[in-house]
Amino acid sequence: MILETIHQPADVKRLDGQQLNSLAHEMREALLVRLSKHGGHFGPNLGMVEATIALHYVFDSPKDKLVFDVSHQSYPHKMLTGRKDAYLYEEHYDDVSGYSNPHESEHDHFIIGHTSTSVSLACGLAKARDLKGEAGNVIAVIGDGSLSGGEALEGLDFASELHSNLIVVVNDNDMSIAENHGGLYGNLKLLRETKGQAECNLFRAMGLEYRYVHAGNDISALIAVFQEVKDCTSPVVVHINTQKGKGYAPAEQHKENWHYCSPFDLATGKPLDGSHEEDYSTVTAQYLLAKMKEDPTVVAITSGTPAVLGFTEEKRKEAGSQFVDVGIAEETAVALASGIAVNGGKPVYGVYSTFIQRTFDQLSQDLCINKSPATIVTFAGSVYGMNDVTHLGIYDIPMMANIPNLVYLAPTTKEEYLAMLEWSLKQTEYPVAIRLPGGAMVSDGRTIDKDFGKLNQYQVIQEGSKVAVIGLGTFYELGCKAAQVMEQKWGIHPTIINPHYITGVDEALLDELKIEHTVVITLEDGILDGGFGEKIARFYGDSEVKVLNFGLKKEFLDRYDVQEVLKQNHLTPQQIAEDVAKCL
Amino acid sequence: MILETIHQPADVKRLDGQQLNSLAHEMREALLVRLSKHGGHFGPNLGMVEATIALHYVFDSPKDKLVFDVSHQSYPHKMLTGRKDAYLYEEHYDDVSGYSNPHESEHDHFIIGHTSTSVSLACGLAKARDLKGEAGNVIAVIGDGSLSGGEALEGLDFASELHSNLIVVVNDNDMSIAENHGGLYGNLKLLRETKGQAECNLFRAMGLEYRYVHAGNDISALIAVFQEVKDCTSPVVVHINTQKGKGYAPAEQHKENWHYCSPFDLATGKPLDGSHEEDYSTVTAQYLLAKMKEDPTVVAITSGTPAVLGFTEEKRKEAGSQFVDVGIAEETAVALASGIAVNGGKPVYGVYSTFIQRTFDQLSQDLCINKSPATIVTFAGSVYGMNDVTHLGIYDIPMMANIPNLVYLAPTTKEEYLAMLEWSLKQTEYPVAIRLPGGAMVSDGRTIDKDFGKLNQYQVIQEGSKVAVIGLGTFYELGCKAAQVMEQKWGIHPTIINPHYITGVDEALLDELKIEHTVVITLEDGILDGGFGEKIARFYGDSEVKVLNFGLKKEFLDRYDVQEVLKQNHLTPQQIAEDVAKCL
Repeated sequence: MILETIHQPADVKRLDGQQLNSLAHEMREALLVRLSKHGGHFGPNLGMVEATIALHYVFDSPKDKLVFDVSHQSYPHKMLTGRKDAYLYEEHYDDVSGYSNPHESEHDHFIIGHTSTSVSLACGLAKARDLKGEAGNVIAVIGDGSLSGGEALEGLDFASELHSNLIVVVNDNDMSIAENHGGLYGNLKLLRETKGQAECNLFRAMGLEYRYVHAGNDISALIAVFQEVKDCTSPVVVHINTQKGKGYAPAEQHKENWHYCSPFDLATGKPLDGSHEEDYSTVTAQYLLAKMKEDPTVVAITSGTPAVLGFTEEKRKEAGSQFVDVGIAEETAVALASGIAVNGGKPVYGVYSTFIQRTFDQLSQDLCINKSPATIVTFAGSVYGMNDVTHLGIYDIPMMANIPNLVYLAPTTKEEYLAMLEWSLKQTEYPVAIRLPGGAMVSDGRTIDKDFGKLNQYQVIQEGSKVAVIGLGTFYELGCKAAQVMEQKWGIHPTIINPHYITGVDEALLDELKIEHTVVITLEDGILDGGFGEKIARFYGDSEVKVLNFGLKKEFLDRYDVQEVLKQNHLTPQQIAEDVAKCL
Repeated sequence: MILETIHQPADVKRLDGQQLNSLAHEMREALLVRLSKHGGHFGPNLGMVEATIALHYVFDSPKDKLVFDVSHQSYPHKMLTGRKDAYLYEEHYDDVSGYSNPHESEHDHFIIGHTSTSVSLACGLAKARDLKGEAGNVIAVIGDGSLSGGEALEGLDFASELHSNLIVVVNDNDMSIAENHGGLYGNLKLLRETKGQAECNLFRAMGLEYRYVHAGNDISALIAVFQEVKDCTSPVVVHINTQKGKGYAPAEQHKENWHYCSPFDLATGKPLDGSHEEDYSTVTAQYLLAKMKEDPTVVAITSGTPAVLGFTEEKRKEAGSQFVDVGIAEETAVALASGIAVNGGKPVYGVYSTFIQRTFDQLSQDLCINKSPATIVTFAGSVYGMNDVTHLGIYDIPMMANIPNLVYLAPTTKEEYLAMLEWSLKQTEYPVAIRLPGGAMVSDGRTIDKDFGKLNQYQVIQEGSKVAVIGLGTFYELGCKAAQVMEQKWGIHPTIINPHYITGVDEALLDELKIEHTVVITLEDGILDGGFGEKIARFYGDSEVKVLNFGLKKEFLDRYDVQEVLKQNHLTPQQIAEDVAKCL
């Protein structure tokens, strides 16, 4: 086995053409086995095997520096840079993260997990190299789907200003996570069809030189071009045409489904965990499709992740022009929603908590200053969400909830969520965001008759005394459990409150609590700094009421165990009850 | 006078060619007089007079909808849409804002003040129009300088997906605020040189149709093209070549200086307020230029506003390749800084507080997850900063200070600032941001020997009892004044603390304060929600210490009087002292 002998990129350089092809075959086999058992980004990695071999054959990493955009296609790179065991042996699978990571290897230069950042980051590496008067190549590898993101386009535009070495490999497999959206993909198609010869060329229009490789999965063709551009003295784009999911028939055919995979049966391609339970995504699609039929101005918006809204290919067809995928372009998604709302439409933008981060200024300027009545639904904003350091959903409250005019709501159940969505689509006064709870969806069949237009009215679920528990979103349940412990252990019957609103304080209710309560606790599924609980602490600052804020520490967690993190942050019912008892 | 007769766009349509030219002349004269007395955006507006007349001649606003990017060029539009008096009569100058504003007129659709948003917002208007089955044109007007911003490029890329009417007028005057930066400007140049005929065309590469108008200040040529594209059924770019500052010789010659102007003498072009006092901008340039000579890896970065860093054209020349203007591309600026820092350089990115908002995800992902030791200096982060609703500097603390790993510092004087900058450039452990105080720069000549590497150690400036005053940044002085009132009125001798750090709490010191203090107050020059003070309130939540947080209410202020806003927010020394007295 050749792969077994690859301990560093230099080992690739020693191989002849036939051996390089064998290596590609072995790598693909290893990837398939690992992905079938472990899950991970599938299509992008299978497509980049040959290009990665060619890159390491030609360039001298780490002196030459490779930056992989979003890292969805960095597995082959890891296999060739001393981390093969994590792809060959099940007991080592978890030795590496799913993203590039300098703590793992000197061949990685950044922790990267969001799209569209590679070109600008690579420009920085190149600029420092030039300031230091050093030599070496800097290579950004970016998939076509990432090109539509603002930071990527900014970076491509800026790159020519370097006037020195920078190589941007555009991995064009004609797909984003789902199909590509945006006018530039027409240009990529034209370039593919003309074998790179078309005069109209996005990259040249950005001031960059350009090379095209039709056979993007042919190692020798790739090596030839990389050798040509090596040590170039001005930025050049190498546009390679690869096949997403190459080497696994189901993935070649169903590219969207195989962008990422959970563990699956290698023989049949069927997922091992075949559960199709109702979740917030399916509920959202179901609700919106029904609404779209009632009202032609209801429109669902995604920025390249239609699945989060529950809009499968079939449902997108059903929605027709009432479903818009802007491609990976979150800023435009928010601005588009604002524009639609200002002109009388009813937009709903569904987005992961970690990606709404890409739109702070659009939320503030395009949406909230204009008080545009658009709806945003944030998914996986929770410690129970994705747990890679680049994909955490625990920062959206400080980011969003301190923007004036925004009404940010926190449902605790499916029924509350749908009632909030219903209200938000009807009203025309506020930009509204809804933060879906993490973990399994709770559905209790309760009818919700609350008027969410009466802003910042919290709901008292249980009247008690001494202690008041304000449990926000996901952590409402945790608050109830902590209250039970207090009751059982110390006979305290706490008041339990579901605040619903993240963006405002129910001053009348909080004032009232002062009469019968000595301790008020808050619980939120996110970091404490800048969050919900601190607003309550500020409110009670001049009073006798003691306030305990429960939530997560401000830090970047990575691949954590939820139960452990909860424990470390005093977030078990038992710990919460004990902390309260100390204050009484 | 023709302008006097223009009460609405319909009045423009009645004019013949000669009258239209006279109108342009009158508008330019009125603009010159108003700008010389009042100040405002100069160059962009003078260049757009003819195009705006032609737009209103051809299109039917408000049925046809015009969206002006960043609004730097919206004055002529305001003059033709019922707001001429604000440009003709000094007593009415303040009837309008400097930006587009739906509260002023049905001909404005958004409040816009940040760049690069128009195309995406216009896409939203167009999409809603289509969903409603209505007719009408949607026109985005965007200056060439704004094209480099990620949101603009995203919007251009997305627009073709509309498959319906959208007109993007690209106002190309070959300038951003300073000279343009980025590869796409080479393409604009090529298009100008070939009268729009070059095959390589950025806009066509984005899937858009394209028209070129060489005589961008010729009303009849503009009318002809706008009539051609009116009611088009797929998105089209109209690229017009205008002259920035047209009609005023000093502005035609010195385009950068005349992008924006303070009141000036119309005859000589000299500013009326000729003060050239030292400020944080000049101090920064002076410090960095000296550093650059010592260390070739020190590099200053701006995103299209070199003046904020004090880098005039002359100083930029002096810095050479150690000064980088990425153009209006804030996301790339942060990523670039991170890349430079990771590769051993010493980047300093200087940016207005209101524009650092455009980079939340880059701060979090590109910079802080990677712990890249770059330096960011935020200017005008203060209630004393710009006071248009789109340019406020009172939101950066909640936006930035809750991102893990960032060290956000708040100097109170020039000396502290330079000591922090010095430390930040030396250290290699943390991403550091420095929030410059608002108002006039304070310089007290004090030597600063504090080691800022010992994170979150606040400094006790005066030891006292009962009350502790923690005054952050600009408001440190305010805290001292409030303390004086307390001393004079009630004989209280408060402890006074300069916290220096926005991003962390000095737990040891705060614990110590519990012994001799019953009230701790915090003061910060920004909104309270998600800010610094709330962290202190949370810390003391379970203690007997009372906490009062002073700062601004979470709201969008617009063209406010600082003293009034301070009073409304209980931010005079007297009010603060009284609020404290109530707690004792």
